[in-house]
Amino acid sequence: MDLDSMNSSTGNVLRGNVVIGQSGGPTAVINQSLAGVIETLRRDERIGKIFGCVHAVRGIVNEQFIELQDIDPERIERMAMTPSAALGSGRDKPDLAYVQRICETLEKWGVHYFFYIGGNDSSDACRIVNNTANQMGYELRCFHVPKTIDNDLACNDHTPGYGSAAKFVAHAFLGDNLDNRALGGIKIDVVMGRQAGFLTAASVLARRDAADGPHLVYLPEVDFDETHFLDQVDRVYSRYGRCLIAVSEGIHGTDGIPILRHLAEKLDLDAHGNIQLSGTGVLADFLASSIREHLSCKLRIRADTFGYLQRSFAGCVSRVDCEEARQVGRETATMALDGAMDGSMAIERICDDPYRVRYRRVELDEVAGKTRTLDRRFIVDGYQVSDSFCDYLRPLVGELPPLETFAIDSPVQQIQPV
Amino acid sequence: MDLDSMNSSTGNVLRGNVVIGQSGGPTAVINQSLAGVIETLRRDERIGKIFGCVHAVRGIVNEQFIELQDIDPERIERMAMTPSAALGSGRDKPDLAYVQRICETLEKWGVHYFFYIGGNDSSDACRIVNNTANQMGYELRCFHVPKTIDNDLACNDHTPGYGSAAKFVAHAFLGDNLDNRALGGIKIDVVMGRQAGFLTAASVLARRDAADGPHLVYLPEVDFDETHFLDQVDRVYSRYGRCLIAVSEGIHGTDGIPILRHLAEKLDLDAHGNIQLSGTGVLADFLASSIREHLSCKLRIRADTFGYLQRSFAGCVSRVDCEEARQVGRETATMALDGAMDGSMAIERICDDPYRVRYRRVELDEVAGKTRTLDRRFIVDGYQVSDSFCDYLRPLVGELPPLETFAIDSPVQQIQPV
Repeated sequence: MDLDSMNSSTGNVLRGNVVIGQSGGPTAVINQSLAGVIETLRRDERIGKIFGCVHAVRGIVNEQFIELQDIDPERIERMAMTPSAALGSGRDKPDLAYVQRICETLEKWGVHYFFYIGGNDSSDACRIVNNTANQMGYELRCFHVPKTIDNDLACNDHTPGYGSAAKFVAHAFLGDNLDNRALGGIKIDVVMGRQAGFLTAASVLARRDAADGPHLVYLPEVDFDETHFLDQVDRVYSRYGRCLIAVSEGIHGTDGIPILRHLAEKLDLDAHGNIQLSGTGVLADFLASSIREHLSCKLRIRADTFGYLQRSFAGCVSRVDCEEARQVGRETATMALDGAMDGSMAIERICDDPYRVRYRRVELDEVAGKTRTLDRRFIVDGYQVSDSFCDYLRPLVGELPPLETFAIDSPVQQIQPV
Repeated sequence: MDLDSMNSSTGNVLRGNVVIGQSGGPTAVINQSLAGVIETLRRDERIGKIFGCVHAVRGIVNEQFIELQDIDPERIERMAMTPSAALGSGRDKPDLAYVQRICETLEKWGVHYFFYIGGNDSSDACRIVNNTANQMGYELRCFHVPKTIDNDLACNDHTPGYGSAAKFVAHAFLGDNLDNRALGGIKIDVVMGRQAGFLTAASVLARRDAADGPHLVYLPEVDFDETHFLDQVDRVYSRYGRCLIAVSEGIHGTDGIPILRHLAEKLDLDAHGNIQLSGTGVLADFLASSIREHLSCKLRIRADTFGYLQRSFAGCVSRVDCEEARQVGRETATMALDGAMDGSMAIERICDDPYRVRYRRVELDEVAGKTRTLDRRFIVDGYQVSDSFCDYLRPLVGELPPLETFAIDSPVQQIQPV
């Protein structure tokens, strides 16, 4: 950890209890971070009880706690390898009264440390709890432990959870490209990503050349234009006799409103005002219909929506992601034990090859509620992803399986009968 | 192989060339079977050229062949580990004129052996080619090599491709159950399976107890009743505060017509008259709407459709499935080299523990165009899967990842503040 950045915000180390929560969409490695926090804190004699709050901050106001300080290390290790939030998750956005109740409950339980594992909404909740406790004069030290498959946290090279979700998406497209190659036609795959296209961009990782799909990649960073989309599909299909398309669930026109919002009447809003974009096949089916209607309707057109499979799939976890998720937990706990008053722990990349990172404290304000999107240099022509993005992504995902095919796309071979 | 069953149908071993094709929906291990056929045949001096026909039987009439007999063994090995059909696939249903052209082309190319890797439609195509060649007096020996993620071939304990697809489905539900546990609400997952529920039934493999999802499993073997479905969802939700539901894409009411067919106007039919059930989220979205409309609409309801991910996902392949797919290819080639006139190669289970199988020749007529469905003894109350099904499935999938959670579903724990 970068100690220089802590000088202005360190104090004495308080004796007290701890509350840890997990918030927002689960990931395949979010429990690694939980394990990292627990194993680091419980070695320190100044730390009393370590309470897990069940279903995020709701577990605090409901006083639904699980004691974690004495759990058998082997059980912690199995829990770390289990996908999704072991403590349960939640999406409550606390208002002032809610936050005051959180602070009062924490005081009642002798808690002076609050760790919150989550994405940008969760870091914002963490910041609000921190500020309110300060205003109430209650000595509470609040720490945000980053996690999100969206990879959209400010100040971070990447976030725990992203590597494993990206690995899932890369594997899915590796297979679906070969499936589409074997049977032809047009295939649309909708990938998670509300405002940032990092996960959808991972679809290109297994591509070998221009003939491999996804041939077109639509991201929320670029305004979606249906006419241009149809032209591109037509162009790719005319050239390769097939077309595989990766689409972020959050794509929108120039009005900035997700297309899915225009399509679906009954989608849910969460407490943060985010519209439900996942858990429905409406966008994929709409794009398939659009192609069916405007291009030759004799084509075989299929549309899949990856949905929640992407974020809690146990069978395809990235080793680097696992290790970093664990280390982010440890580093955040260490920052607290070193006397930091608050903060979030960011991952900074030092080197691509050999891949190396370091962890550094950033202010809650720098991360809270902010959204990082895919750098423009990674987007080519509005519907392609650059090679430099693959260089960025590769160390986070690890090796892909071998790939060997025959030249079935080429014109009839000139073998003569015997 | 069971030699007794071959006696009635063996003859001299012909010298000649070979054509191999891959047909129908690809799987993660279909190329293992291709490798098994190639490596066995090319060691035999009576076999001349080994041609792969590109995009199934269409590659024969188009004379689009790839020579396979001299391909480097390392390349064959990499190809075997690559998902989806390396030769391309197809769904043409040959009529008499088409079959006659196939036979004429094979004769022109000096082919006396035809191997066709596929499911029940493909075994039917193989049978028709075999019969037509016999009628034309052309000495062609036709062999079907089984593959299908649907696991619905007659005479087989299970089919190559199923174990890996089932492993994907089991992993997906393992994660999605924990995701649903963490965030609550109702979740619907639609799984492939037109007439047989084997793949959907694999959703239960990671369940530990009644509180784990999927809580409800809807299969094409049981008529679907919407009112009964809503009652069950309500019952499960009232008990556990959440509900995870596995649904086969092919579910139908008492009329036997898939619900999806009633819902979607523009679904495709393939040449075999099968309606497109995959590659659309319409069924999942319909069931979600039905719950939203009839039960309390405040619930968080999500619906995912696994789609084509299930069959060509490289990241989650079953070791047993890999080995058996390879061995089925070898055994079929060996049957031909032993002088069989035609046939399909079935997998028979000898023992559950330790798991052991044997391979035996069956008549093309016994497999061709027939559909095996999930045994009634595996279905409990119409919406549950029995433990005996898990005993059947476990050896085909292999070990699942460890699973460790905390008691977050239980009532507030009686810990007292310090």
